[in-house]
Amino acid sequence: MPNVVVYYTENCPYCRMVKAFLDQRKVPYRAVNVGTDRQAAREMIERSQQYGVPVTTVDDEVIVGYDAQRLGEIFGEEQSDTSLDVLIVGAGPAGLTAGVYCSRKGLKTLLVTTTIGGQALESWAIENYMGFRMIKGDELMHRFEEQVRSQNIRLELDRVTGVTREDGRFRVTTEGGKAFKATSLIVATGKHPKSLGIADEHRFLGRGLSVCATCDGPLFRDKRVAVIGGGNSAVQTANELAGLAAHVDVVVRSDFKADQADVNRLEEKANVTIHRGWEVIALHGDAFLSGFTIRERRTSQEVRLDEDGVFLDIGWLPNTDFLAGFVELNERNEVVVDENCHTSIDGFYAAGDVTSIHSDQIIIAAGEGAKAALEAYAWVVSH
Amino acid sequence: MPNVVVYYTENCPYCRMVKAFLDQRKVPYRAVNVGTDRQAAREMIERSQQYGVPVTTVDDEVIVGYDAQRLGEIFGEEQSDTSLDVLIVGAGPAGLTAGVYCSRKGLKTLLVTTTIGGQALESWAIENYMGFRMIKGDELMHRFEEQVRSQNIRLELDRVTGVTREDGRFRVTTEGGKAFKATSLIVATGKHPKSLGIADEHRFLGRGLSVCATCDGPLFRDKRVAVIGGGNSAVQTANELAGLAAHVDVVVRSDFKADQADVNRLEEKANVTIHRGWEVIALHGDAFLSGFTIRERRTSQEVRLDEDGVFLDIGWLPNTDFLAGFVELNERNEVVVDENCHTSIDGFYAAGDVTSIHSDQIIIAAGEGAKAALEAYAWVVSH
Repeated sequence: MPNVVVYYTENCPYCRMVKAFLDQRKVPYRAVNVGTDRQAAREMIERSQQYGVPVTTVDDEVIVGYDAQRLGEIFGEEQSDTSLDVLIVGAGPAGLTAGVYCSRKGLKTLLVTTTIGGQALESWAIENYMGFRMIKGDELMHRFEEQVRSQNIRLELDRVTGVTREDGRFRVTTEGGKAFKATSLIVATGKHPKSLGIADEHRFLGRGLSVCATCDGPLFRDKRVAVIGGGNSAVQTANELAGLAAHVDVVVRSDFKADQADVNRLEEKANVTIHRGWEVIALHGDAFLSGFTIRERRTSQEVRLDEDGVFLDIGWLPNTDFLAGFVELNERNEVVVDENCHTSIDGFYAAGDVTSIHSDQIIIAAGEGAKAALEAYAWVVSH
Repeated sequence: MPNVVVYYTENCPYCRMVKAFLDQRKVPYRAVNVGTDRQAAREMIERSQQYGVPVTTVDDEVIVGYDAQRLGEIFGEEQSDTSLDVLIVGAGPAGLTAGVYCSRKGLKTLLVTTTIGGQALESWAIENYMGFRMIKGDELMHRFEEQVRSQNIRLELDRVTGVTREDGRFRVTTEGGKAFKATSLIVATGKHPKSLGIADEHRFLGRGLSVCATCDGPLFRDKRVAVIGGGNSAVQTANELAGLAAHVDVVVRSDFKADQADVNRLEEKANVTIHRGWEVIALHGDAFLSGFTIRERRTSQEVRLDEDGVFLDIGWLPNTDFLAGFVELNERNEVVVDENCHTSIDGFYAAGDVTSIHSDQIIIAAGEGAKAALEAYAWVVSH
């Protein structure tokens, strides 16, 4: 057996996926929390030449992020399956709820997903999930995941790359090279963060630029950081980072679109500087990001700021690339659904943030997941 | 002050409404649990000449059920209000969630409802509300209600009788004689139990015939009872009553449409007799129900059975009478909604079991309530 080390932080979903992958295959490994162990954090950054978790080392090889394909090559794949009743893509609140409902109805169900918990993991504090006065996003998602695991649903950590229809059934292919066939399909792939669309953005991801403050935030204790964005999520992130980092710059293109109470809290913090009406036009740095240039939109004045970390939080786009041309999408590329989660294709249901539903809320996504599952059940028993 | 006594059972929502009504008006009363105190139960049945809770005595007057109008006449009404942002009708999972979301958005919100918790109160054990491995319906609804109360939302216990539109706003009138005006309307009135449509049904309600086993079940300890119906709810009710009553007859018109695991549990019980393919054709009794006649549908053979209590559980109809001719309903009289809870009228949203959504589940209703609230918010801020 090779010597395997997983460097992780407490709330990082991708870290948990690496561990789940290794656990599934009974691979022994050492898990190192770089959110609390500063010595180990330095070691990880040195070995991987970047700032993002997870990092997995397999003897001398360094694997950055949750790389299902590379891990699969090293530790082996599972078999494909063509006798499924329902295949669910995505395991945020919608996909996990759909999984529980399908399984309770006795359907042969497979969940294919790249992340467990989805966007919900990144909510610091949720006050409007009914049943709980206040709960953290990751704690709520652990509870969802526990309910799924109690149902013994098969879970495949992989990315779906294509869907076709063959003899009235759905054929789904994955990045890991697998193919599955199912009578019914539920897509609950959610949304992903929008990018700035400027040079070097991709190169600096994990090298000072982050789209997951919950994951990578703990690595920037006592450092200088920036948050780009003005919505609820960005303002919450900035508030949390202000309690951790030395200084926080907040850059928002026009004005905040977040709850006023949270904006007030942010404005009161001594170590926060708010740049309203500014936009990021360039990223700077060599191997690691060292700062950026912002421009005031009204005056075109430019300012260069030094930063150790930059957190991007400017909105979300639906994960529907693999569905283009297959099912009806709207002008925002969301899957068009009716009130019962039906799409333009019989037997194909969609749930949660990936759909034409306006509001992105955990309780809404969970409800939609249940609905999609019960519709899929009705479809499967009649086909 | 008059001498007021409220006879109640633990899980009865109508009992809690009577108590809430009196608490709101600071009326002192004595609460007697007739589910545990058999002597008091006999006293209540004697004084009210019927078997249903709640019973409220005000000096010599006996009020059966939650009679908002009579209680209002005795203890006084509150004022009407015409400056509301949102009026929510109904306080099951959908209405309560909508209330929390509206209030958190800072909308001036009123909840008008005849029951708190709705149909969900009557679920014995819920295993598929995400976040909880297992929770009782009434416990979950208490948690919902607590979240509403923490928001300081105004709650009016009354029945809505009419809705009109005046100068672009909604005017809502109630059985209690009140009128409210609101910019936006959310209807979440759920469904009510279907009746058998046979003679004397109404007369025996509360006199041996019950539509709320959770409420009235405890009064039939060691007695002979029957459950009419074959769905999930009827089978769960029969299973619970079998642990409490001396004998349970289950009458189902064709065959069970419930989960097989629950049907198996029922079939194994020694004190349960299942009548498959039979229907109830007559109720018998004088002041109280004493039994019924059932007929086998295949052979037309008739059998008369003695029963102390009969629990009706044959399906549900939407509570939309007050909406007839005002908003688009479908062939089942449900409010037609799109995937964002929009109805045929701008500013009017509907959520939960009252809508054209197929599945009646707590998590779905809660999600729809959140959705409706956020759509109402968007409407109110732009009008």
